[in-house]
Amino acid sequence: MTKEAKPLTDLAIANAAVMKPIGVIAQQAGIPEEAVEPYGRYKAKIDVAKLPVAKSNGKVVLVTATSPTPAGEGKSTVTVGLADALAKLGKKSMIALREPSLGPVMGVKGGAAGGGYAQVLPMEEINLHFNGDIHAITTANNALSAMIDNHLHQGNTLQIDPRRITWKRVLDMNDRALRHVTIGLGGPGQGIPREDGFDITVASEIMAVFCLATSLDDLKERLSQMVIGYTYDKEAVTVRDLGVEGALTLLLKEAFKPNLVQTIEGTPALIHGGPFANIAHGCNSLMATNTARQLADIVVTEAGFGSDLGAEKFMDIKARKGGFSPDAVVIVTTIRALKMHGGVAKAELRTENVQAVAAGIVNLEKHVETVRAFGVQPVIALNQFVADTKAELDYVLTWCEKNNVRAALTDVWGNGGEGGRALAEQVLELLDEPNHFAPLYDVEQSVIDKITTIVQTVYGGNGIVLTDKAKKDLLQIEQNGWDILPICMAKTQYSFSDDPKKLGRPKDFTITIREILPKLGAGFLVCLTGDIMTMPGLPKQPAALQMDVDEKGNAVGLM
Amino acid sequence: MTKEAKPLTDLAIANAAVMKPIGVIAQQAGIPEEAVEPYGRYKAKIDVAKLPVAKSNGKVVLVTATSPTPAGEGKSTVTVGLADALAKLGKKSMIALREPSLGPVMGVKGGAAGGGYAQVLPMEEINLHFNGDIHAITTANNALSAMIDNHLHQGNTLQIDPRRITWKRVLDMNDRALRHVTIGLGGPGQGIPREDGFDITVASEIMAVFCLATSLDDLKERLSQMVIGYTYDKEAVTVRDLGVEGALTLLLKEAFKPNLVQTIEGTPALIHGGPFANIAHGCNSLMATNTARQLADIVVTEAGFGSDLGAEKFMDIKARKGGFSPDAVVIVTTIRALKMHGGVAKAELRTENVQAVAAGIVNLEKHVETVRAFGVQPVIALNQFVADTKAELDYVLTWCEKNNVRAALTDVWGNGGEGGRALAEQVLELLDEPNHFAPLYDVEQSVIDKITTIVQTVYGGNGIVLTDKAKKDLLQIEQNGWDILPICMAKTQYSFSDDPKKLGRPKDFTITIREILPKLGAGFLVCLTGDIMTMPGLPKQPAALQMDVDEKGNAVGLM
Repeated sequence: MTKEAKPLTDLAIANAAVMKPIGVIAQQAGIPEEAVEPYGRYKAKIDVAKLPVAKSNGKVVLVTATSPTPAGEGKSTVTVGLADALAKLGKKSMIALREPSLGPVMGVKGGAAGGGYAQVLPMEEINLHFNGDIHAITTANNALSAMIDNHLHQGNTLQIDPRRITWKRVLDMNDRALRHVTIGLGGPGQGIPREDGFDITVASEIMAVFCLATSLDDLKERLSQMVIGYTYDKEAVTVRDLGVEGALTLLLKEAFKPNLVQTIEGTPALIHGGPFANIAHGCNSLMATNTARQLADIVVTEAGFGSDLGAEKFMDIKARKGGFSPDAVVIVTTIRALKMHGGVAKAELRTENVQAVAAGIVNLEKHVETVRAFGVQPVIALNQFVADTKAELDYVLTWCEKNNVRAALTDVWGNGGEGGRALAEQVLELLDEPNHFAPLYDVEQSVIDKITTIVQTVYGGNGIVLTDKAKKDLLQIEQNGWDILPICMAKTQYSFSDDPKKLGRPKDFTITIREILPKLGAGFLVCLTGDIMTMPGLPKQPAALQMDVDEKGNAVGLM
Repeated sequence: MTKEAKPLTDLAIANAAVMKPIGVIAQQAGIPEEAVEPYGRYKAKIDVAKLPVAKSNGKVVLVTATSPTPAGEGKSTVTVGLADALAKLGKKSMIALREPSLGPVMGVKGGAAGGGYAQVLPMEEINLHFNGDIHAITTANNALSAMIDNHLHQGNTLQIDPRRITWKRVLDMNDRALRHVTIGLGGPGQGIPREDGFDITVASEIMAVFCLATSLDDLKERLSQMVIGYTYDKEAVTVRDLGVEGALTLLLKEAFKPNLVQTIEGTPALIHGGPFANIAHGCNSLMATNTARQLADIVVTEAGFGSDLGAEKFMDIKARKGGFSPDAVVIVTTIRALKMHGGVAKAELRTENVQAVAAGIVNLEKHVETVRAFGVQPVIALNQFVADTKAELDYVLTWCEKNNVRAALTDVWGNGGEGGRALAEQVLELLDEPNHFAPLYDVEQSVIDKITTIVQTVYGGNGIVLTDKAKKDLLQIEQNGWDILPICMAKTQYSFSDDPKKLGRPKDFTITIREILPKLGAGFLVCLTGDIMTMPGLPKQPAALQMDVDEKGNAVGLM
């Protein structure tokens, strides 16, 4: 049974599952009772300061995927199923995942809690407000905005130029009408009129800071370094200049504790932080990953989109900052996705087409090369769907064998951990081999060199072109000494190139860098390479229209 | 010891208190374990469906106050201290309070958790995100806004007139620059341009609905009735027309469970919901009050501002809807407040001035009359401060005796329940007497009659004047058959009149009704009588500037 033919919804499967009390899961994970702060019966926050500090060397398995297609690859589902499978094989495994943003849940999909029999629970609460972390980030972000506009209104002693405020407001909502707004209208008592805009909360720099900070002190320090805009003299204005890093840290301090939940099979999972993988680095908090490494022998974690985006940033930004090595990388792919990369339209995916699989496998090939470029070996998880034929599956498995790439079929949606057993065995073999992880570039290289390295090695492009705006940004970055930061590429997830229509493995392209945004709190330079959506819109028929509460008070319509 | 001379901050006293685990408090309150959903160690949500349904007849003591002054009266503090005192006297008491809005906490004050030794705990968490209820309301409100703007953008089949959308966005923030905004700018892909504005979340109609709903079904029904604007043909458009009442209910369903906490002395308190007392009715949720009545013999609760606002609405809106009678009313006042009503400036409050007390006591006199107009007897809580002199205190006590009003001195800030013992004894005597509670007007009366009754009986005014806009509103309300709803007056809290400068007991005034807003979900008609602030601003030196987290991770700078 696979997702395509599902007789039950994810919500129905989730509701039918019997959860263990969260205290039991915590005990199983080796978390002492005094470190467990329950949020309801099946969720808890973990007070990391109260954990035993015996070890912090759990191995890290990163789950990434081929370039995403509308067919869906099932990356979160494989992440969950793999950890369940490792547990079945007697390993002490733990999951570290991002928390879902509510905006997309209301719009188009059911969040990021896995699916079928490979889900984290309680699905409903994880997909709605969870433990309030994203609300706390929204609040901190908008408290900063209110302090900025209040500063303007109360005399503007810092001489902030209202036209050069780069800090935007946020909501955890898909709300296109808030992308471009004017505020402060209505007369002298109502603030200073200026242009502004709202991003979705997961695109806030505070989310990125939250996910890269290693302690409350580090969080405060990074918050204080965030640039909110520029003065009339074009000097950067930081949160420290406004004096609100203490208040922002206070607003975030409870949210900063990782959240413990469980899979349907009872494997412990930490779900914490969820930055966008385009404007930010796209993986769960370093706090959660570090905590999981402290508690478990194997941590299965995930990064957003394909390896060109999430995995690259995981390696070059998060692992570098966190001082750990990814020990193995799983690349999730499907026959459906490879067919789409081979030129098949979504409506025709159910027809056998080995030729299209063969044509599309170049996408997988490039992701394998990318992972190996970091000195780490991949395992392909070929995630089965009912319409897949033996010939199609065999083609991929044979290709993997020929190219000396480990591979396994997975059916975790329908069979949970059991469906991930073959994958888990491959991963365990790989973990016994030495790995030679290293980030792709040195932060001391020039910004141009760093970007070019990513484009050539990860995307397979020829090089980069900077717009005049990007050149101007770069000059400012160099003048301020901000050029020693790592790069956070903001590129379409659909293609290795900056053109979302070029599927498969495009060649002979250059990447145009349109803007370079210094994110000093997060500690990276965001390079924009196209229209990057930082506030999604709702579709014509939003998922919200199907949502309800039944007579017993249970959720209805979450997907 | 009283607040004025405080040697310790509220936060320091709160941090020094030893809390009991919330399970112990729940047990003490008669809440079975299966109904308790812990949120951390010292907070819980109560699943009301799992409570024993034995009784629901706890007596209700409403705490109100004389017209508020900048000196502060200590209403929440007396509420907490009175419940503690009743517990000391062997009564099964419980508190029902509003949850503090974060906006004012960041701006000017430390929330609504009481003070000194009469506080609810954990003070820090109650004042910050608490259990996420207000965030859930923010989210539901803004999800509705996003659905409205998406409807316009996707073809506007309902023919909503963008100029006549009355539904505003909200944030739980003091942010004046968001009062008047234009949204949907940036071109055809970015929504439909229109004027909009943000209120503070506690001014959202959803907050009022949340606080008046008696069940999840009732919540959904009321949400569906909310009017979001009008079509080009001036027909009302409701949430039901948009089809999102299910999604909004889903977003609110966990928040809708009352929150259990404890006082410093271990008295159980339900803190739930917090509508503004100007634009809305200003008291905690009916769910919390009903739950407390089910569990305790005496429920001590509070309504916003003076008896002309919060108490009037408590009686005419909440008690009417909830089908219960307030059994006694405590009117909190202070020598300082009476002096200000007697014409003394804030800077001179520390100087003895019996004459000013005598001049200001007319304010108290009117509040006593107001409470009696509802068929309920008041007890005056004369809340002591260090600078109060014996002559001043004696003047008030003698006045009360002469006017046959029960009274007691309180010192709950400094002495907790012990400081409220005399008040508790008076309250207990009063509870043994019969009371003849009745709302002030019948909902079937005309709108004009209902407003006039409030103005003459509660404010002591001569009558009302309607602006042309209000007359137009009234016509529309009558044409739609909405005129059978109770009235929610939106008036300055500082004066019985609509002029905030007229302290004491103004006479010979009329009240100008500027607008009448139908709030069909909340189930009342809001009558605006002046500039009603629905989005506060931050002061020049916001409280946020003092906030921080210390090296142990504890809050600093909450007041």
